[in-house]
Amino acid sequence: MARTQGSHSDITGPRIQTAALRLFAQHGYAAVSMRQIAKEVGVQAGALYNYTPDKQSMLFGLMRGHMQDLLATWRGQDLPVDAMEQLRVFTGFHIRFHLERADAVFIAYMELRNLSPENFTEIETLRGQYEDALEMILKAGVDQGVFHVPDTKIATLAVIAMLNGVNTWYRAGGRLSLDQVEAIYWDMVHKVVAPN
Amino acid sequence: MARTQGSHSDITGPRIQTAALRLFAQHGYAAVSMRQIAKEVGVQAGALYNYTPDKQSMLFGLMRGHMQDLLATWRGQDLPVDAMEQLRVFTGFHIRFHLERADAVFIAYMELRNLSPENFTEIETLRGQYEDALEMILKAGVDQGVFHVPDTKIATLAVIAMLNGVNTWYRAGGRLSLDQVEAIYWDMVHKVVAPN
Repeated sequence: MARTQGSHSDITGPRIQTAALRLFAQHGYAAVSMRQIAKEVGVQAGALYNYTPDKQSMLFGLMRGHMQDLLATWRGQDLPVDAMEQLRVFTGFHIRFHLERADAVFIAYMELRNLSPENFTEIETLRGQYEDALEMILKAGVDQGVFHVPDTKIATLAVIAMLNGVNTWYRAGGRLSLDQVEAIYWDMVHKVVAPN
Repeated sequence: MARTQGSHSDITGPRIQTAALRLFAQHGYAAVSMRQIAKEVGVQAGALYNYTPDKQSMLFGLMRGHMQDLLATWRGQDLPVDAMEQLRVFTGFHIRFHLERADAVFIAYMELRNLSPENFTEIETLRGQYEDALEMILKAGVDQGVFHVPDTKIATLAVIAMLNGVNTWYRAGGRLSLDQVEAIYWDMVHKVVAPN
């Protein structure tokens, strides 16, 4: 990135985050130094410390930001009353939100091992809130008699894992459009919770 | 690990692999040096090069070994004729095989980015063979009229992603036994391919 974009604090902060995200995703958190991040942004290594106390805070900030963004965007969705329709909205939302943030998703799963214990707990709490959102839909569907789910917690984890898989293979311009991907996954997700 | 286990080549080789696997899984490939691996094993750094030309070969060897082991073990399974029963065998096999190899599975997905292009191609070929094994079952079930699968390739990836998810949360001695986990996932997997 060129330095000509300026080093004003409201510009440099996001640029540091973007650079850290990309470098962590590419090389792994443990292999990236503050010096590398500074070089990528085009500032002196010492200048980074105006924005973040250390590399751990940077990783935590990225992961927390990702989860908060996910939760806020989900909570902003217009949800229908019907549980089956809610699940359809969730399926499309999850696929699209995560495909647009491949690096953040990769880090969110891969770098849990590098969080300090207290930071790990906070990220897991946020992740739990997102899982709870899906589990509430599944429980509502069971209550409404439209879903058959032997274990709503496991079904929640299974559906999220299935949908996360899209990030590992989907490429824009490939065999399937995003609408087709969404339709195929909806076919599978709705059957996962269907009565036998 | 203590050095007293000896440094005979048929003992040291596997010990190096075990140490590399553990260190790569814990810190990430890029953050681990040959010196660290040697220290973990209790040999001089120079001695490692009697066993492997470099760190890339070590990573590739671990990933290829994991995939070859997976393929050979799957091909050794006694498969029923019925596609639905084959899918049931696959589901249980996949969960158990992967749970027993958490570090290797983690590396198999996470360190693809660190493979050289030719090594990446070889690992992807092996992974493709495993995916093909599941897709053949799905296609057979469609042919036998017992499965409804709009896209067998995507369903293959979806089922594998769903099953891989077990590794992220299952802990022996937790709320659910392995048999219960297998039964719950079988309920979901068989519904994914069920007619609407």
